[in-house]
Amino acid sequence: MSDWIDNQKNLMLFSGRAHPELAQEVSAALGVEVTPQTARDFANGEIFVRFEQSVRGCDAFVLQSHPAPLNKWLMEQLIMIDALKRGSAKRITAVLPFYPYARQDKKHRGREPISARLIADLLKTAGADRIITVDLHTDQIQGYFDGPVDHMHAQGQLADYVRENYGTENTCVVSPDAGRVKVAEKWADALDGSPLAFVHKTRDPNVPNQVKSNRVVGDVEGMTCVLIDDMIDTGGTIAGAVQVLKAAGAKDVIIATTHGVFSDPAAERLANCGAREVIATNTLPIPPEKQFDNLTVLSIAPLLARTIREVFLNGSVTSLFNGSA
Amino acid sequence: MSDWIDNQKNLMLFSGRAHPELAQEVSAALGVEVTPQTARDFANGEIFVRFEQSVRGCDAFVLQSHPAPLNKWLMEQLIMIDALKRGSAKRITAVLPFYPYARQDKKHRGREPISARLIADLLKTAGADRIITVDLHTDQIQGYFDGPVDHMHAQGQLADYVRENYGTENTCVVSPDAGRVKVAEKWADALDGSPLAFVHKTRDPNVPNQVKSNRVVGDVEGMTCVLIDDMIDTGGTIAGAVQVLKAAGAKDVIIATTHGVFSDPAAERLANCGAREVIATNTLPIPPEKQFDNLTVLSIAPLLARTIREVFLNGSVTSLFNGSA
Amino acid sequence: MSDWIDNQKNLMLFSGRAHPELAQEVSAALGVEVTPQTARDFANGEIFVRFEQSVRGCDAFVLQSHPAPLNKWLMEQLIMIDALKRGSAKRITAVLPFYPYARQDKKHRGREPISARLIADLLKTAGADRIITVDLHTDQIQGYFDGPVDHMHAQGQLADYVRENYGTENTCVVSPDAGRVKVAEKWADALDGSPLAFVHKTRDPNVPNQVKSNRVVGDVEGMTCVLIDDMIDTGGTIAGAVQVLKAAGAKDVIIATTHGVFSDPAAERLANCGAREVIATNTLPIPPEKQFDNLTVLSIAPLLARTIREVFLNGSVTSLFNGSA
Amino acid sequence: MSDWIDNQKNLMLFSGRAHPELAQEVSAALGVEVTPQTARDFANGEIFVRFEQSVRGCDAFVLQSHPAPLNKWLMEQLIMIDALKRGSAKRITAVLPFYPYARQDKKHRGREPISARLIADLLKTAGADRIITVDLHTDQIQGYFDGPVDHMHAQGQLADYVRENYGTENTCVVSPDAGRVKVAEKWADALDGSPLAFVHKTRDPNVPNQVKSNRVVGDVEGMTCVLIDDMIDTGGTIAGAVQVLKAAGAKDVIIATTHGVFSDPAAERLANCGAREVIATNTLPIPPEKQFDNLTVLSIAPLLARTIREVFLNGSVTSLFNGSA
Amino acid sequence: MSDWIDNQKNLMLFSGRAHPELAQEVSAALGVEVTPQTARDFANGEIFVRFEQSVRGCDAFVLQSHPAPLNKWLMEQLIMIDALKRGSAKRITAVLPFYPYARQDKKHRGREPISARLIADLLKTAGADRIITVDLHTDQIQGYFDGPVDHMHAQGQLADYVRENYGTENTCVVSPDAGRVKVAEKWADALDGSPLAFVHKTRDPNVPNQVKSNRVVGDVEGMTCVLIDDMIDTGGTIAGAVQVLKAAGAKDVIIATTHGVFSDPAAERLANCGAREVIATNTLPIPPEKQFDNLTVLSIAPLLARTIREVFLNGSVTSLFNGSA
Amino acid sequence: MSDWIDNQKNLMLFSGRAHPELAQEVSAALGVEVTPQTARDFANGEIFVRFEQSVRGCDAFVLQSHPAPLNKWLMEQLIMIDALKRGSAKRITAVLPFYPYARQDKKHRGREPISARLIADLLKTAGADRIITVDLHTDQIQGYFDGPVDHMHAQGQLADYVRENYGTENTCVVSPDAGRVKVAEKWADALDGSPLAFVHKTRDPNVPNQVKSNRVVGDVEGMTCVLIDDMIDTGGTIAGAVQVLKAAGAKDVIIATTHGVFSDPAAERLANCGAREVIATNTLPIPPEKQFDNLTVLSIAPLLARTIREVFLNGSVTSLFNGSA
Repeated sequence: MSDWIDNQKNLMLFSGRAHPELAQEVSAALGVEVTPQTARDFANGEIFVRFEQSVRGCDAFVLQSHPAPLNKWLMEQLIMIDALKRGSAKRITAVLPFYPYARQDKKHRGREPISARLIADLLKTAGADRIITVDLHTDQIQGYFDGPVDHMHAQGQLADYVRENYGTENTCVVSPDAGRVKVAEKWADALDGSPLAFVHKTRDPNVPNQVKSNRVVGDVEGMTCVLIDDMIDTGGTIAGAVQVLKAAGAKDVIIATTHGVFSDPAAERLANCGAREVIATNTLPIPPEKQFDNLTVLSIAPLLARTIREVFLNGSVTSLFNGSA
Repeated sequence: MSDWIDNQKNLMLFSGRAHPELAQEVSAALGVEVTPQTARDFANGEIFVRFEQSVRGCDAFVLQSHPAPLNKWLMEQLIMIDALKRGSAKRITAVLPFYPYARQDKKHRGREPISARLIADLLKTAGADRIITVDLHTDQIQGYFDGPVDHMHAQGQLADYVRENYGTENTCVVSPDAGRVKVAEKWADALDGSPLAFVHKTRDPNVPNQVKSNRVVGDVEGMTCVLIDDMIDTGGTIAGAVQVLKAAGAKDVIIATTHGVFSDPAAERLANCGAREVIATNTLPIPPEKQFDNLTVLSIAPLLARTIREVFLNGSVTSLFNGSA
Repeated sequence: MSDWIDNQKNLMLFSGRAHPELAQEVSAALGVEVTPQTARDFANGEIFVRFEQSVRGCDAFVLQSHPAPLNKWLMEQLIMIDALKRGSAKRITAVLPFYPYARQDKKHRGREPISARLIADLLKTAGADRIITVDLHTDQIQGYFDGPVDHMHAQGQLADYVRENYGTENTCVVSPDAGRVKVAEKWADALDGSPLAFVHKTRDPNVPNQVKSNRVVGDVEGMTCVLIDDMIDTGGTIAGAVQVLKAAGAKDVIIATTHGVFSDPAAERLANCGAREVIATNTLPIPPEKQFDNLTVLSIAPLLARTIREVFLNGSVTSLFNGSA
Repeated sequence: MSDWIDNQKNLMLFSGRAHPELAQEVSAALGVEVTPQTARDFANGEIFVRFEQSVRGCDAFVLQSHPAPLNKWLMEQLIMIDALKRGSAKRITAVLPFYPYARQDKKHRGREPISARLIADLLKTAGADRIITVDLHTDQIQGYFDGPVDHMHAQGQLADYVRENYGTENTCVVSPDAGRVKVAEKWADALDGSPLAFVHKTRDPNVPNQVKSNRVVGDVEGMTCVLIDDMIDTGGTIAGAVQVLKAAGAKDVIIATTHGVFSDPAAERLANCGAREVIATNTLPIPPEKQFDNLTVLSIAPLLARTIREVFLNGSVTSLFNGSA
Repeated sequence: MSDWIDNQKNLMLFSGRAHPELAQEVSAALGVEVTPQTARDFANGEIFVRFEQSVRGCDAFVLQSHPAPLNKWLMEQLIMIDALKRGSAKRITAVLPFYPYARQDKKHRGREPISARLIADLLKTAGADRIITVDLHTDQIQGYFDGPVDHMHAQGQLADYVRENYGTENTCVVSPDAGRVKVAEKWADALDGSPLAFVHKTRDPNVPNQVKSNRVVGDVEGMTCVLIDDMIDTGGTIAGAVQVLKAAGAKDVIIATTHGVFSDPAAERLANCGAREVIATNTLPIPPEKQFDNLTVLSIAPLLARTIREVFLNGSVTSLFNGSA
Repeated sequence: MSDWIDNQKNLMLFSGRAHPELAQEVSAALGVEVTPQTARDFANGEIFVRFEQSVRGCDAFVLQSHPAPLNKWLMEQLIMIDALKRGSAKRITAVLPFYPYARQDKKHRGREPISARLIADLLKTAGADRIITVDLHTDQIQGYFDGPVDHMHAQGQLADYVRENYGTENTCVVSPDAGRVKVAEKWADALDGSPLAFVHKTRDPNVPNQVKSNRVVGDVEGMTCVLIDDMIDTGGTIAGAVQVLKAAGAKDVIIATTHGVFSDPAAERLANCGAREVIATNTLPIPPEKQFDNLTVLSIAPLLARTIREVFLNGSVTSLFNGSA
């Protein structure tokens, strides 16, 4: 038998091409360079990836953001994971600040896919041992992956910002629809027990299956409403909610969201919807053309960097963090 | 090569020992006998099962209910499935009218299990090809099983009963907490667009982390409140909600739930909480000692029987049903 | 035990949105409608699919072509397969006329992915039981899928066209590089034992690692060269080969390929490279802007339709076909 | 949707090259030809197999016996199963009259393999859906395969032969070692409650760890001993047992075994050990050079044929058989 | 690339609620605290578990005993393993001093489960990487788990006790039935080559299928019989064996068993059966009401603790132990 | 929680019995002893393996060569891997200098196996985490294994030998058939841009499907031809190629191959075929009776030893090597 020698490990950070700025921020916060790689598209859209350094035995964190064209970036991440698996990385953690297809987390009707589960399975198949993600559309998605999921929350960061800038007196937390009331309740707790409301689609009893109007359930008159959502895509629902809140007498509306998808015409809608401020994080890139005057973007990079370090060091430094994972 | 001969199939119904009355009802509705079996407990709790008839090539439906002692009944179902797999059943469908551990469908905090996913994996490992279940605690649980899940809903049956007995005028649908508002919205649609309310736990802003009171969000004064939930266990939350609704001026409260778990002291609480009627189904057995005066139990057997037949016949008779699966 | 009844099966054809014309041709040849479905993109690129008819128990064939944006169409096919699996299809066959990422079928150097294997694993994970494909870049890719792969060849169709239009006298089969010589040899057999040649990149022995020139190995002077390849992407290599052949005295050059990827500037290059005719099939859509004067497109639909029928009927009609699968 | 048509199935029988006579007997008893195939060895021992007929959709039974060189015949069976899987057989049953490596069914000491489990996993990996086998060395091996195992017993046939030729009066059933006493007990029941004995290795208490002698436990004086074992390899143990029985006063010894491995010098030993008759089945080929005067070989083919038919017909004819599976 | 740092590991011990005393003993012997946890039952029997400390990266040993209600304790162990998997434990070893369902290790007749294999699969599915267990009912069960099984034996400890208290002269080892004779032979070796006997159920040859009497095979007259078994459940068989041995002239009977299941009425039977002493270990809890005068309980904790340490330290300290694993 | 201690690892080398000389060479180059083991064949061909030292926690490299009887040696390697898995090795790398069944890497026609994929799956199933191999028949085989494959190349070593002994002037690289031209092109680059040729089977256009003659494509007149192949089995093709080259005016022919299978009558053919020298490596044993005068054997051991060390040390010493893996 040969001698026993000390086992060692190293942390390597990898980044897809979807959001290089976020990777740079995480790299800086972590003190670990993004591993140089060749990544390019063939003319027909096939993606090629090759790492410029040995990945043998490393503890790999593969960061990819998922803006449009989302399927391309997902495929790039899967290919990177495959290359790491075949290149002998010891452990592979897929970092998805925005979990794609999270809205398709159930069959709303028969003969639909459950794409959120499919994504978890594809990541596993490619070779991911674990997942780090932020503010899943529903918490249950954690269970779609057969392995550890570190589920980070941006709420603390967003709520601190709201508290510092608006205080919590006369504040009301509002869910834009019936499905987010539970999340709104957590916000209410974070904002010193603020009252709660939500926007409810009512229907005309005489005309089945037709939406009559959106109605606020709960009292918002004279309040500063913090309208929350996990993601804002085209902004239609959320902008409509602002209007309804204003009509119901809200004094001010602040919008807070983790994932600023901001597909067209979100920027225009949000700029003009009457909200005083829109607060989002950079889990997705928000290029100049998607930005607007009353938008504030908080960086998710420090949270991701702390989580990656915690995972790498196996919790022996857990006491340094207040991570909820 | 031998000649080609016609392939045939047959439906066989199996039942665990947890709720034989339901099995008999399903058997009658289906026109298929429950397959005779030997099932007994060894002195140390180990379960033994043996089928009295050949199961070779059959399309097996393994019905088990999951009241207390729930882990025992779950294990019995897994063992039955194993015996079917090794006995050459062609396809095995686990029928779970009440899906166990559905409430543990996420990590509420770190270092918790996701038991609802574990259950799906255990069923798969034992040999289940598919699942039939009723009113999952959250719809996302469908995605925990890697295969077809026929997710039935008792809402139609329950809502019809409410409509027939109470009408829908002056009716308000109430969720007992923030997490069920979305389900309540579906009820509101089913009850001709009834208004919506929910009970919200408020906290004293001056005393962090302490619940101040439960408050109704939405207007219930003078209304007949239909208080809904997927399951009622000890009845504490739901009985508390009745009190809050009454205090907020509700005229009447009707409780409707799919799963009557009714652990002690649910029967006493529900009998005395002030609700006019409690409506449940028999997805779980409700023995005499759990029953009370104002309780109405609707049978889930017809829905299960229709679903089983639809699955067996591969949808060639789909047009006969209005199944939501 | 219930009575034994006859087991039945039906063939259902599904089509992604990448190449609807091909799906229509296959549908017509097969006499089976493409199953109606809802398929659309969300603003951020997420794809939603829902089938309009029950798929319970069906023998599903999911046809998708893979032009750019290839990753999107691949993801759509995976999502369709997931929906079929969860919707209780009995068997799912993924039909990929052009297998994506086939060129990345090995690690050319260290730390690369083997994306062609990854694709096979993703299809399996989503729920595909089997694959039908045409002219894989290398035959070994068949082995990447853990299940039956029906690997069709368009060579017969293409060679028949060449023979009918050009005869086989004075014909020479040419591989555009060293890696295709084996395939060229099969063509040579199909064209009555035509002689063989290939284009070889020579290097200057005095200047290491620098390509000196492309040289024809084999004699092509005065011959009608049939220059073959499995796919033509941007057309650079193939157009270069035409020049080299002409310089080596070739009388005429005919290009034959299965997969007309034709990424820019392929159309221009092929139109002007000096080849007399370019023959391709429609495994990929060739929209008007990719077409050019001397291009001939043969339809792959009859071959796909016959293969699908053969698979559905379990070979009991094998004698009707000359399929090579 | 296309029309629903009747589903059909056919039984195809395949045979490795290890024991073609047994395959022919099974084929005759079943009324199904052995599927023609090409099977040959390359010069370095690699095996090549190709079936001459389409196997698409068939119910395949792959019969292979496992005499020396056992690893070759095992590999041939695995390769045949792989070819069937890739050739679209609908269901694949591996038929192993003698299960290889059954004696290595546990770690006798640390750092040993459990080869019997490995065999089950290899068969599963290659594509076997189910197993048919005869008289496993220990019953627990059934559980090594994750799927149905039809475990046939030759005891009935062997015991009938003994009864007809020797009667059951004054008969004693003897296990050649401590590990087979349980099996001997079943034989004793089958032979009208014959008494039981076994051969025990005793050790000298004064000389630790040294075998003193083999001793008969139980009374055999004046009896006709039926010495039973599942397999006889080199015959050393069993021939020694005959001697010990004779020395203990046995009148006659009859040896009965299912698997006549008969490795050298078994034939010589058994011919000269003093046993009146040796009865075996042909689960393994017994070529002329392994035969001897007092050997009787019963054919296992009728049992295998009946089992195969039962499995194919899904038990709808179970009542015709007395199979113990 | 980041710097390489030393990799570290820590041992964490977890315990289910079935037998906390054993966990405390193991903890003390190991010098490692049992990890604090919350574990409770919901009213309907669902179990909730949460660990109070980070388990990230730990080498987890999950000790659970399996007395009645056995299915509950099994499920608790599976849930704990799931929580460890999702909480990022590095390696998970399930410690089962008594392996549940070990008696169902084969299909005694058709259409039975093989529950012992099912248990192994459930543990694997939940996330167990390896198993530590003591004295399996049959050694073959080791092979049911797809991974390392450290199979400990209590025989050494039990035999030492017998030797010290009774010596080995005039001692005879007795198996209570035909299936344990092999194990008895190992005991005989451990007791300096003691002679062997077993109890055989004889049947009346004139009345088929009816047990005539239990008979001792082997000579026990005037001997001190050590009657051994892996487990004693209700004690019927073993108490009957004592009577038969006494009737056959045995001077004394000592009962030795690893697993004292002792289901009612075992305590009464064993106290009154005439055995001089009953020796068991505490792989299962033996509460006061199950104890009786002539019962001696040896602790299995030292053996478990040594094994756990050996596994944790990867055998680099193997020389310190005489473990048989 | 217990203290964190340093994790350690050790390299253990294991060797099957097929080519002990190679194992000794690798052992010496690595400075690690081959782990002592018991390995023997039972009379019926079953293989037994047991390691003499603890393998707990080791980084195991299991070297086996695959000459005839190849299936036996493959099975031995699988059994060794199973023993390591069950004996708690931490990581298992199968080292196959010659990958068996590599030529069956696709279905040449329908109803064939893809045995090269099967081998990868069998290794995985037995417990191999990774593979080290040399000069696969086709590079695509790397993708058959679901994990890291370190694919070494002997070309550098062989080409250096050719260059040193023959120079590269007036040298021509020749592929013996159309399928190896790509590999020949790599050789041509390694030999300073030597020209290229290959042997092509031509057919008579008047007599379909009949080989007319082998013809050299490319100019070899007066050249020193380096005739290359990955393996030489019976030597028929390669000896035929020498003749054709000589007939085409080649001055000299040097044969270079990685795998000297040399099945009869290879030695005789190669000795007498007219080649000046035959160069091979010892990936397979070349016993005296297979050797001949003009044969040169280079040792592959240094390359294997360096690769094993690199894998063990996780690439922290990559800079010391020029490994292409």
